Amino acid sequence: MLIIMDPEANVENINKVIKKAEGYEMKVIVNKGEFQTVLALIGNENKIITPDIFASMDGVADVQRVQVSFPLVSRQLKKQDSIIQISPEVKIGGKNELIVMSGPCSVESEDGIIETAKAVKKAGAKILRGGAYKPRTAPRTFEGLGELGLRFLAQAKKETGLPIITELMDIRDIEVVCEIADIVQIGARNMQNFSLLNEVGKIKKPVLLKRGMSATIEEWLLAGERIINNGNEKLIFCERGIRSFDSKYTRNVFDLSAIPLIKQLSHFPIIADPSHATGKKSLVKSMSFASIMSGADGLMIETHPDPENALSDGPQSLKFHEFEELMKDLQKVHTLANELY
Amino acid sequence: MLIIMDPEANVENINKVIKKAEGYEMKVIVNKGEFQTVLALIGNENKIITPDIFASMDGVADVQRVQVSFPLVSRQLKKQDSIIQISPEVKIGGKNELIVMSGPCSVESEDGIIETAKAVKKAGAKILRGGAYKPRTAPRTFEGLGELGLRFLAQAKKETGLPIITELMDIRDIEVVCEIADIVQIGARNMQNFSLLNEVGKIKKPVLLKRGMSATIEEWLLAGERIINNGNEKLIFCERGIRSFDSKYTRNVFDLSAIPLIKQLSHFPIIADPSHATGKKSLVKSMSFASIMSGADGLMIETHPDPENALSDGPQSLKFHEFEELMKDLQKVHTLANELY
Amino acid sequence: MLIIMDPEANVENINKVIKKAEGYEMKVIVNKGEFQTVLALIGNENKIITPDIFASMDGVADVQRVQVSFPLVSRQLKKQDSIIQISPEVKIGGKNELIVMSGPCSVESEDGIIETAKAVKKAGAKILRGGAYKPRTAPRTFEGLGELGLRFLAQAKKETGLPIITELMDIRDIEVVCEIADIVQIGARNMQNFSLLNEVGKIKKPVLLKRGMSATIEEWLLAGERIINNGNEKLIFCERGIRSFDSKYTRNVFDLSAIPLIKQLSHFPIIADPSHATGKKSLVKSMSFASIMSGADGLMIETHPDPENALSDGPQSLKFHEFEELMKDLQKVHTLANELY
Amino acid sequence: MLIIMDPEANVENINKVIKKAEGYEMKVIVNKGEFQTVLALIGNENKIITPDIFASMDGVADVQRVQVSFPLVSRQLKKQDSIIQISPEVKIGGKNELIVMSGPCSVESEDGIIETAKAVKKAGAKILRGGAYKPRTAPRTFEGLGELGLRFLAQAKKETGLPIITELMDIRDIEVVCEIADIVQIGARNMQNFSLLNEVGKIKKPVLLKRGMSATIEEWLLAGERIINNGNEKLIFCERGIRSFDSKYTRNVFDLSAIPLIKQLSHFPIIADPSHATGKKSLVKSMSFASIMSGADGLMIETHPDPENALSDGPQSLKFHEFEELMKDLQKVHTLANELY
Repeated sequence: MLIIMDPEANVENINKVIKKAEGYEMKVIVNKGEFQTVLALIGNENKIITPDIFASMDGVADVQRVQVSFPLVSRQLKKQDSIIQISPEVKIGGKNELIVMSGPCSVESEDGIIETAKAVKKAGAKILRGGAYKPRTAPRTFEGLGELGLRFLAQAKKETGLPIITELMDIRDIEVVCEIADIVQIGARNMQNFSLLNEVGKIKKPVLLKRGMSATIEEWLLAGERIINNGNEKLIFCERGIRSFDSKYTRNVFDLSAIPLIKQLSHFPIIADPSHATGKKSLVKSMSFASIMSGADGLMIETHPDPENALSDGPQSLKFHEFEELMKDLQKVHTLANELY
Repeated sequence: MLIIMDPEANVENINKVIKKAEGYEMKVIVNKGEFQTVLALIGNENKIITPDIFASMDGVADVQRVQVSFPLVSRQLKKQDSIIQISPEVKIGGKNELIVMSGPCSVESEDGIIETAKAVKKAGAKILRGGAYKPRTAPRTFEGLGELGLRFLAQAKKETGLPIITELMDIRDIEVVCEIADIVQIGARNMQNFSLLNEVGKIKKPVLLKRGMSATIEEWLLAGERIINNGNEKLIFCERGIRSFDSKYTRNVFDLSAIPLIKQLSHFPIIADPSHATGKKSLVKSMSFASIMSGADGLMIETHPDPENALSDGPQSLKFHEFEELMKDLQKVHTLANELY
Repeated sequence: MLIIMDPEANVENINKVIKKAEGYEMKVIVNKGEFQTVLALIGNENKIITPDIFASMDGVADVQRVQVSFPLVSRQLKKQDSIIQISPEVKIGGKNELIVMSGPCSVESEDGIIETAKAVKKAGAKILRGGAYKPRTAPRTFEGLGELGLRFLAQAKKETGLPIITELMDIRDIEVVCEIADIVQIGARNMQNFSLLNEVGKIKKPVLLKRGMSATIEEWLLAGERIINNGNEKLIFCERGIRSFDSKYTRNVFDLSAIPLIKQLSHFPIIADPSHATGKKSLVKSMSFASIMSGADGLMIETHPDPENALSDGPQSLKFHEFEELMKDLQKVHTLANELY
Repeated sequence: MLIIMDPEANVENINKVIKKAEGYEMKVIVNKGEFQTVLALIGNENKIITPDIFASMDGVADVQRVQVSFPLVSRQLKKQDSIIQISPEVKIGGKNELIVMSGPCSVESEDGIIETAKAVKKAGAKILRGGAYKPRTAPRTFEGLGELGLRFLAQAKKETGLPIITELMDIRDIEVVCEIADIVQIGARNMQNFSLLNEVGKIKKPVLLKRGMSATIEEWLLAGERIINNGNEKLIFCERGIRSFDSKYTRNVFDLSAIPLIKQLSHFPIIADPSHATGKKSLVKSMSFASIMSGADGLMIETHPDPENALSDGPQSLKFHEFEELMKDLQKVHTLANELY
């Protein structure tokens, strides 16, 4: 149930509603919007607790039953875009400057990641990506440098000031990852690892939630709902392609209409990962253009000093000079998108 | 096998190669490019007929074995874009003005289609779409007006000058359809109706080939190859979304990366149909932007005078004023795309 | 709407109901069951025509609104299994002897098909399969012998007495195919070729309707409904595998639960094609067992005198001695299935 | 690389090969077969380490390069079926008595699970299933009783002697789960939770690995390979249906051909879960028959004292008397399958 408070409602009005709801053993999530406060009442929706119990209270403008199973991430709860602050300078969501996260699939060496950080920063990237823990389908393949990789990322951040995004795969690594990460990434294969979702729901860092390989839009939103439901309020969705019947030319099918759809259904931002979605360097440019033009709040693009010799995902990584050229074009696309939306 | 003739090669040189190839019972397709002629030799590729049989002939610059199963539609055959002339004023492919085909899913009345034709022309559409024969999953539902619908389309063309695109479903209708259509559309459900493909391969009209609901990129290209192989050289691909595991919010998954991919693999143009791909009016704007920005040679967008009361596909059809506003924005996107590609 | 007549109802009662329904511009389909007659009233279901209009008429036992979009193929219309008579000796559906259709993917020579017919008959097959017209994804590949292939099939039938099933792809071939075919097969790629479905709906021969590669259960039933709606009452469904995200080891995913599901939803029989469903000879035995045990009314199994040199589908074809051994085992499985269902 | 030792080879011969391989930094897995020992050499396969380095050593019969990416689970490593001992009385794999695991989706009460254990034991089930930790797509739904549920399962085991299978979702629960579970289940959503797979690879209990919702056969085998690679040698695969484009009538598509396929590709047993695969009680009987007849080493079937009021998965659960009847039929199917395979 959503309690939309009157713009004129005072703290006392709000507290009374909260107290009453808690008296019915409902959990209350408070959303202070620009104009008014909205209270989401979760749980214990039974026949006795009807909207009219709250409708006549002082300061209550409206009471709505929520139709969706994901009220906390839903646009119903919050009309305006949620903006996620990553660092003092960088935020994601709303009308902003172009946000591109770039770097290698996996951190391979200290020199390599620092060189990459400098190159992508120069080209205009706002966030450095790099995997220290890598999910790999086959055992006995390179699975990342682990904590050493995290230390190299920390060094790259120190030298360039770029915030870091890196993947968390194992609950037991949550502390070391949070020490250096500015955004904690949940990978596609873990989108329904509910234990992991519960835990990142308890931290204060922004979480980037990649879509599972065959996750429906609703399952994805519900995975986000689980994070928010645990108390974290900093969520970023990331479309990275879904599995289809055809993988001859592209690794996945890039479900681009998911971008405007998520923005219609949820107040949280969504970025696009054309590198993983297509798995093909030659498609990154056009799909980056299309992502921005479809309303994405940012991009994740893989770069590598030497893609041919990358330990993972070489075929989809750009060289630095290619990335630099792409970024110039992307600025133009971003400017037009800002004008048209 | 592809025989790339020298830019200096004369007609005699070319004829000698053709004659030799035909002596080996190979079919020869002649492609006169801007700079040079390329001959595609089809069939009878056996161990005896090796490239060196042709390599030393006068006027032959290079001989290449073709790796793909779709040589005629392939970029290997022709580096430059094929441009399909629709009417004296309208052509599709290459760097052109914005090409938008618009109109209702099905023609419902003479007044309705004429009103639509005028409205979409005013907004900037170059081609009128409208179904006279409608494929319907369920029997006993409205299946189009048939020949009457064709006559209404002819009238709309007469009044506005807009070229017509309409679907052909049944071989027996090929003559009546060709009488009024400037582009013959093959629908998704018929993409592997090989008899129908063979027949539209024998006509002179441009054919728009929609992607089958679960057709791989290769199957789609092969369906196009079949048309070209029958002698028609005017092909336009159309991405209209593919079937996925999730149809809760969108009718299909719009496989947008198919657009740059087809342009890499084939010399024929490709347009996008965001209306059918998403099935949702609220996604048409962003997906039209994204399509153009990903390099599409044009768009197909459904409009209807009164979407709420349309006999088919109402939920995805725009009203005229919505279409008009969209077209203004699309011009800007098209201008930028022309600059960046 | 279904009008269930009383077992005691006489012809006059029935005719009065029909006349009344026709007065409302409804189409009436008469189903004379073992115990009672059921009338299906199709079309013009509006608010005025309610069940009570018919409920009080003499001889009417019950009136039911049909919930499904495929009333004619539905179990609601007819509780008992429809049994399709193929030849004086062979029928499909209900509790019968084991029905196996066998033969090559495509008819390649007169001797070959006659040899095959004799071999499969000896092993216990009841019907000879063989393609004269073959749908092929790529042009310029072997597409069957056409009418010559039909003549060879006719000869094989003459020599063995086996009824023939062969595929119809092109409306224009319907007469020549019907001349020799005892069952007309509609292939997966044509399951939504609505013109073709309409035409086979007008013939008197049994039609075997293969499931489309990505057809939902409902779309498949609706394709069958279209055939019945055109007047043909002899329908056999055939599950042949659906497209999935994994084609590394099997050509398709064999959706075996479709078999009991179709039998729950429809009164028409369903057979299974483990050869096409798996595309792999080594899986044909186990999947034939499983098909029969899941309730299939028959099987279609590919055999070839020399699979290694078959012009199509060699990897999934059994040799004659393999087929003969399989048939012995299948008899046992069939006996147990008959006992347990 | 596989080193197939001579049946006559002695311990010293074997040790010398191991020592040499370890000298090349290769990991050695020893498989003592009935007739001979096979050594799997993993890692560091470079150009220098060729088969001939080992081929001439004493006691070496043959050296084979492994083509697959999953050598340890592969049939290449071990021709005969691996048999997994669950308890002194129960084992899975090879030719055995009928193995059925049954019980509720989730443990709801002590009385309920004990009642169920007694009922399914009486009907012939060999193993009790029941979830204490339940993966749920939506937060704020019943997620199982946790440790309390485990205690109830322990009590049911104490009273009936039935071994227990229950799901592990969170690495931190591994000890409490292993205390009571005889088989640790990894659910579909965690099939690529690599941290969890690594950990269950280090325990001694049998692991049942459900197929991921859109996992390819190869990804599934690789997930199993990861478990074995960590040292656990007790693996059971479980097919539980995959995601498709159609979920109107069944929850998943039951990929039954995966059963004979896994048995061809791997030496580990595979069981089928028709309850989850179809999500529909009315399909459980036929799909259980089909599973056994396709060669499955066992079944997992959901039962519940009161399906209508189950907290999860009621629509797919059998009542006890239905289960009892089914088990009688299944014995007949199992007997025939044992005869025919």
